[in-house]
Amino acid sequence: MDGIGTRREKVTHSLQGLKAAALLVSNPTNIRYLTGFTGEDAALLVTSDRAVLVSDGRFAKQIEQECPDLDVQIRAMNQTLIEAIGAICRKLKLGSLAFEAHALSVAEHLSLREKLPAVEMTATSGLVEAFRAIKDADEVAAIREAIGYAERAFVMLRNGLRRGETEKDVADALEGYLRRCGASAASFPPIVAVGERAALPHARPTAEARIGDADFVLIDWGATGRPYKSDLTRVLVTGKVTPKFEKVYRAVLAAQERGIAAIRPGAIAREVDAEARSVIEEAGFGRFFSHGLGHGLGMDIHEAPRLRKGGEETLQAGMVVTVEPGIYLPGWGGVRIEDDVLVTPDGCEVLTHVPRSLDASRVN
Amino acid sequence: MDGIGTRREKVTHSLQGLKAAALLVSNPTNIRYLTGFTGEDAALLVTSDRAVLVSDGRFAKQIEQECPDLDVQIRAMNQTLIEAIGAICRKLKLGSLAFEAHALSVAEHLSLREKLPAVEMTATSGLVEAFRAIKDADEVAAIREAIGYAERAFVMLRNGLRRGETEKDVADALEGYLRRCGASAASFPPIVAVGERAALPHARPTAEARIGDADFVLIDWGATGRPYKSDLTRVLVTGKVTPKFEKVYRAVLAAQERGIAAIRPGAIAREVDAEARSVIEEAGFGRFFSHGLGHGLGMDIHEAPRLRKGGEETLQAGMVVTVEPGIYLPGWGGVRIEDDVLVTPDGCEVLTHVPRSLDASRVN
Repeated sequence: MDGIGTRREKVTHSLQGLKAAALLVSNPTNIRYLTGFTGEDAALLVTSDRAVLVSDGRFAKQIEQECPDLDVQIRAMNQTLIEAIGAICRKLKLGSLAFEAHALSVAEHLSLREKLPAVEMTATSGLVEAFRAIKDADEVAAIREAIGYAERAFVMLRNGLRRGETEKDVADALEGYLRRCGASAASFPPIVAVGERAALPHARPTAEARIGDADFVLIDWGATGRPYKSDLTRVLVTGKVTPKFEKVYRAVLAAQERGIAAIRPGAIAREVDAEARSVIEEAGFGRFFSHGLGHGLGMDIHEAPRLRKGGEETLQAGMVVTVEPGIYLPGWGGVRIEDDVLVTPDGCEVLTHVPRSLDASRVN
Repeated sequence: MDGIGTRREKVTHSLQGLKAAALLVSNPTNIRYLTGFTGEDAALLVTSDRAVLVSDGRFAKQIEQECPDLDVQIRAMNQTLIEAIGAICRKLKLGSLAFEAHALSVAEHLSLREKLPAVEMTATSGLVEAFRAIKDADEVAAIREAIGYAERAFVMLRNGLRRGETEKDVADALEGYLRRCGASAASFPPIVAVGERAALPHARPTAEARIGDADFVLIDWGATGRPYKSDLTRVLVTGKVTPKFEKVYRAVLAAQERGIAAIRPGAIAREVDAEARSVIEEAGFGRFFSHGLGHGLGMDIHEAPRLRKGGEETLQAGMVVTVEPGIYLPGWGGVRIEDDVLVTPDGCEVLTHVPRSLDASRVN
């Protein structure tokens, strides 16, 4: 991918502000963003004039292929990752080191301190994540692709849906459709929740609940592409549209529309959440909307920014967020409608295109 | 699952040794092991006389179903997990708190310290993991089930394998077979690596390399059951058995047999690794076996103990480990053979049954 060098330059430019000679990147997605390396158990050290990827023998050949221009240190089999990082820091005579406070465990930090007693260590937070939150054109194109995989797979699911299939059957089939449509995999284990099981925002598909056991089924799914992700939710009506369902569905849909309308550069995350939330509160379901309105979407399924109560992030052009209000009524079920939205210079663009109307949710 | 209360009692009994009034459990698998809760973003506080699970509104109903007897604290939407933990510790008037040093980030630790300035905090490591390493009869039965799913799926794969299919086609189909056979999902993204791509121990399936492009294909796969996992590797010969392939294959197989023969209660991890490694070294391939011999297997795909150079853990009855020597020759390919082995009171039992001989690896 082009521009990866530019990403590392941004990190280099941040070092001065951090008053550190280097940044130790240990969040795996941040490493991938800054190098293209898709493996595990690695760390990246970015100094003012170089970047060194630390990995082990399982990944040596892969790194040659994925990051041919990068300095690489393959650690010995009897050396831990932290020991290898310590050795490189000593070799480079680094006097100070910033690290990712959310991606380094206390145990790793203690071990690193022990190896580098004279090095001044500074905790940082969200530095690379803030770069990642603003997608460039290629990243937006990759998200559009991941949405395309998810949407085509949903058409397959919808057309093949049969009464009597279990939630697990449907989820397993969906995983196959996503891959068939081009995804490397689902972007998270799909949620297929029939009737009252949809009252659990994070329900897992069961082999007991079946399509047709209740009037509707909630499906929350997405695709992983190269390697950006998509994330959608729809509720399909397989039985009757009851007045209660219609009331809940319309409230959620109106809340989503209000939330989307509030998305533009300069909007504050909590304000967007509040706009959508107010619609659900006015409909009398406030206490049944038990989560935030949405989250950033990219190489991770959940990333910055977070649209939620108390969220202080300011939206900027290039951010991609989900907008997914929901109403969950214990013993009855739940409705959530989720789309992926790009913040544009003068507002926003909804990237997902699966119809959202109540009429469109009926399956025959 | 029975016995979960007993597991928490073991933690309670450990508190005295830790000189702590409570243990904060933040490793998600440890939380699942101690509670049965299958969700995310939670923490468990175990004191001398109670256990409190801290979660959020998305999981409230699920926790009622999965852990009906547990004290639960659902945090407010504008409260972080760490804030909620801090509030509970203050309410319980805890004077000291042990935490999992590998599962708490530096950022979380700093935040918790700030919320609990008067509480003495102690880093612990591997406490619950050590309990998890010894499987009880029900856990071994769950691993056997996960092996059964994987083995039946492999028969499907083997019988359906066609020349010209891409690695990705085969991996996607395998994911479907695993679910069809009863797995909730693959226990990790399966590796399907044709010919020289098998020289990458952690190769990802591509849409370019095809069955038949080289004489053999390496498949590393497993299943997740309820919720224990299995992990196997076999190499299938789709073309000619060359003398080089035969030499490499026989060396790996002999190394695996030697490693398995060394597994018994009291054996030290590094000694088992050394037994297998010596066979590969004697065959002249020592520097091409670039990883440890194996790893513990349970609810996590990689857990304690680790069979590797320098590994000091002592094997005990009830442990389940993979034994997976490999030889990786850049530009040619690789052979790895992996089975799952239970340490028994007087030796070990190989739990996996896919044939391993060179003859059995031929696909017609």
